[in-house]
Amino acid sequence: MEMALEEAREAAARGEVPVGAVVTDARGALLARAGNRVEELGDPSAHAEMLAMRAAARALGGKHLAGCTLTVTLEPCAMCAQGASLFRLRKVVFGAYDPKGGGTEHGARVFSHPQCNHAPEVVGGINETEAAGLLRDFFAARR
Amino acid sequence: MEMALEEAREAAARGEVPVGAVVTDARGALLARAGNRVEELGDPSAHAEMLAMRAAARALGGKHLAGCTLTVTLEPCAMCAQGASLFRLRKVVFGAYDPKGGGTEHGARVFSHPQCNHAPEVVGGINETEAAGLLRDFFAARR
Repeated sequence: MEMALEEAREAAARGEVPVGAVVTDARGALLARAGNRVEELGDPSAHAEMLAMRAAARALGGKHLAGCTLTVTLEPCAMCAQGASLFRLRKVVFGAYDPKGGGTEHGARVFSHPQCNHAPEVVGGINETEAAGLLRDFFAARR
Repeated sequence: MEMALEEAREAAARGEVPVGAVVTDARGALLARAGNRVEELGDPSAHAEMLAMRAAARALGGKHLAGCTLTVTLEPCAMCAQGASLFRLRKVVFGAYDPKGGGTEHGARVFSHPQCNHAPEVVGGINETEAAGLLRDFFAARR
């Protein structure tokens, strides 16, 4: 999570909403890390999670991330949650809960439906204070 | 929808699950078209909708697709539905309903929650028979 927070801080420095993500393999080795690049790429789907999962699959040379863990500073939205399911991640660990836009513990609750063919284990609230603080400071500075 | 079906047929010819998508602007002019390329790109997030939305935003030179319509042969999954929300599409038109994996009319029902900050209008069942037939034939041939 420290590395994901670092990616989030770097995203903030680029003027992006500070969210960072890391994918590690079954033994905990780093496969990919990424920060949010929505503004830079002009692509609303360029969330940290999507970029990290795609890069991790490329690093593994396959299509899936079986046995891998996605660690991200913010509760994934429905897009990233379904992405985590499609990439077949074993586990999703996130920092801050996102009652306004989250898609795993709130709203769509993507993993809770029979239409979700692969549901990773989810652990939320890790380093929550720091992850949420980064977002709060970022939006406060823009007001 | 004819063009989306053509993309779906071309996807099947490439060995991809036959789903095709098209993005048109507010006047109905074509911005982008794409077929599913999950296998080719080794990227489970390379659904036709995601590829078409990204290409359409690039074509418009902006980040959003306000006023635009996504036409796709199959009910979008939760990832693509949330993507359509993030790209701020005005409308999503789809062919076949997908009770097993759909995320707009089934399962996560992504547009039905307050966490969805922008909900496109949805019209389902357009050319449903042909869109569903393509999928049925594809999977029957692989069994």
